[in-house]
This record gives sequence, C-alpha cells and structure tokens, in this order.
Amino acid sequence: MEEPLRLKGAWTARIITLFPEAFPGTLGLSLTGKALQDGLWGLETIPLRPFGIGKHRNVDDTPAGGGAGMVLRADVVATAFDQAAIGTPPDRAKWPVVYLSPRGKPFDQAMARRWAGTEGITLLAGRFEGVDQRVLDHYAVEEVSLGDFVLTGGEIAAQAILDAVVRLLPGVLGNAASTEEESHSHGLLEHPQYTRPAVWEGREIPPVLMSGHHGEIAKWRRAESERLTKARRPDLWAARKEGANK
Amino acid sequence: MEEPLRLKGAWTARIITLFPEAFPGTLGLSLTGKALQDGLWGLETIPLRPFGIGKHRNVDDTPAGGGAGMVLRADVVATAFDQAAIGTPPDRAKWPVVYLSPRGKPFDQAMARRWAGTEGITLLAGRFEGVDQRVLDHYAVEEVSLGDFVLTGGEIAAQAILDAVVRLLPGVLGNAASTEEESHSHGLLEHPQYTRPAVWEGREIPPVLMSGHHGEIAKWRRAESERLTKARRPDLWAARKEGANK
Repeated sequence: MEEPLRLKGAWTARIITLFPEAFPGTLGLSLTGKALQDGLWGLETIPLRPFGIGKHRNVDDTPAGGGAGMVLRADVVATAFDQAAIGTPPDRAKWPVVYLSPRGKPFDQAMARRWAGTEGITLLAGRFEGVDQRVLDHYAVEEVSLGDFVLTGGEIAAQAILDAVVRLLPGVLGNAASTEEESHSHGLLEHPQYTRPAVWEGREIPPVLMSGHHGEIAKWRRAESERLTKARRPDLWAARKEGANK
Repeated sequence: MEEPLRLKGAWTARIITLFPEAFPGTLGLSLTGKALQDGLWGLETIPLRPFGIGKHRNVDDTPAGGGAGMVLRADVVATAFDQAAIGTPPDRAKWPVVYLSPRGKPFDQAMARRWAGTEGITLLAGRFEGVDQRVLDHYAVEEVSLGDFVLTGGEIAAQAILDAVVRLLPGVLGNAASTEEESHSHGLLEHPQYTRPAVWEGREIPPVLMSGHHGEIAKWRRAESERLTKARRPDLWAARKEGANK
C-alpha cells in the first residue's frame, strides 16, 4: 500500500469515499482552489472500493436485525481508516477523524474554527444506510452532521465543511476584516447590504448609509442585525441573551 | 438573449452563479447523476458574469456606508433573475426563488420535501459580502441558509440543497422504504447500524439484533434512537416533546 503524500506543514484533508472523482470539485475553484494550487492546504482522497471484500470488492452488507438499505462493513472501513492514519498524529485534537452523518453533532462556525487550528482532518463520506457502529467506536470517530436534512452521501457535506475550514486557514482569505465582520462571527445575522446605483427601480438606499456619519451607520447596522436575528433566528437570539447573562 | 431549454415536465433547478463550471459537480455522480441523465430532473446554470456592467463586466461594488468586501449589484442580479424566470410560474409556491446566505432560514428536511413538490427552483449562489437588499425585496426572494457556518460562496450550499431535494423526486431513489426509515424522517436520530462480520476486533453485534425477534429489535432500535437524540440533540428532543403535547 502506497503511503499518501503529505504537503509538508500544510493543513491536509483526507477523504475516504466511494466517489473520489467528486474531489476537489467546487473546492478546486475560486479562493479554495487557488489556495489548493498555492499549497496552503492539501487534499487527498482515499478510495474505499479497493478495500472491499472478494472479487466484487464489496464494501457493504445488509443491516443486522433487518431493514432497508446497506451498511458499510467495519473491516472494510477500518482498512481505510488505517490508511488515512499513516503519518498523522494519533491525538484526535490535532487530527480529528470525522464521519459525516445526519446523526452527528451539527457542524457550525465554532467547529470550523477549531478544525482550522488542527494539522488536518480525516473525513469519512458515508453512503447507504450507515456505517457499522463498531468501527466508529473503535477509532473514536466524531460524528458530524451538516444539518437536519438527508443527503445521498457525505461527499457534498465534506466539501461544505472543507470550504468553511479552508477559508479560515492563514493566507487563504485576502481580507481578514471580511472574516470578522460577517455573519455568525458575533452571534447575529448580518445587516442588509446595498451598493450602487443609489436608486434602483424606484428603491433608494437607506439615507443613513449615504450620510457619512460612521456612528449612525454602525448603530443602524447593529439595529438591523438584531431585528433580523430576532425575526429569523429566535434560537440564536435566545442563545445570545443566555450567553450574555452568564 | 437565448431562452434556456427546459425539460418538459421534469423538476428543474436554475442556478445563478459566477462559477457555472461548479455544476453539476458531485450532483453528476451516483443517484443524482443517474437521475439527471435519465431526465428525472434538469439542471441549468445561468452565469452571472455576462450580465455585469461595462467592459470588465463588473457584478459588484463597494457597500454603501462602508465596510469590507463587495456587494452584488441589484441591477446585475435583476437581469439574471429575469432570465431565470423565463417559462417559470410566477407563483413562488410553485417555483421558489432562493438566495443562499448565512442570514437565511436554516434549510431542513421539511423544506426539502416542500421543494420536491414544486415544478422547480431558482437558486442564487452568492459570493462576496452579500447582495443588494433591494433586489431581494423586489423579487420576493426567500433567504435560506445551509447552517450556522460561513462558506466562500453559495455553490456548494446549492449542491447540498439540490441533493436533498432531488433524492425525494419520484423515481430517483430505488428503495422508498429507505427514505422513510432514515434519520430526521420521524424527528429522531437513527439508531446504530451493524452488519457482518458478527464479531470484529473482539466486538460483537448486539445479541438482540441477531435474535430474529422483530418486536425486540424494533424496541431496541427505538430506545437507541431516543437515547442518541437526547444525548446529541437536546434541541430536537425538546421540539419533539413539545410537538407531542400540542
């Protein structure tokens, strides 16, 4: 078995998948793609199929106890995890091993920040009904969910998560101020934005934004952020108030 | 301006994007890819760049009132929305028009089900700081978020959402039972799964699953689902109890 190459010092993602051709996909474009080309991060796919059993390289089998769908086998996934572990620190805080599944803890910006501070990550992109629980227990795998919806597989979820993490790596975003100001960085939704032309379809840009009064502009934006958060995300608003009272 | 082709009768997604080459991406593989080839759904990209202003086809400008980043112009985005609207029903319940942004309502399985019952959808994949609010107001655009994290753009979010919707379209999933049993279809996280071999690394499949007692198996799975939901997603558990008390 060939040892995967690792970019010396660069944050690296290893993706265990039945669809290695899905990568880098959209991650190969725009900011994340440029950063990949510039060696600011590394991406390695570990195809699951070659670890399959028998002539047909079977990776899955029917669920114990019956039911629909197919379950990825513990022994097959274990071989892929072993391959992915080569050259990585065993400490999960330095190199998380993650299974993308709707049963997991919801991915959020705090997790993105945490993972951007590691040396890299191994992501198992599932398919079928799930993965044999024993291999998740044995390898201390963190289960993470992209949200409360069901995908055909974990590949797109992996791309979303990597996009969120990679843009936080040093040197990837040109404009650091932009990261700090944007949504979710301060627990409020972002205020509405406007740009030229000053009047469009009879609609004006709110006059305060054209006033040049920086204090008034900041006040208006803050009020709009609070109004939107209360209206659209009472959960975030409540969590924020609770945090403030602690 | 050329009228985009529409697959007669097939659910269709129109994506307004600066990166049309991101599509179909991962959606072109596996179940969603086969369904696309079979004409069970349609995918059209509407590149934003050609609608830009001047020699450089500028699509964005600096935020009114100052601040980091760039804002997509109302007039440029409006032309793309007009193009996307050709041949679609104006009723937003039949053809939602959606802007993917962290400020939006969180995408969930209920939204996926609702959208799978429409004739199609228009998705604006944002970039930069955001979009001029006036064009969102003017076109009655629904703002939807993939979750509480920040992406470099809306393209991967669009792919995640389309994956979740397309698998619910008639004929896409072979096994209907699988859709119903899985996570989030009944407000609980899915129970652990196991498959052959019966013993792996000294770990056995829980004996109840090997017993053949369908009643006991269902009871065990239900208990595990409840245990996991309580432990990992107290929010889902609370929402479920509240729903039951109504």
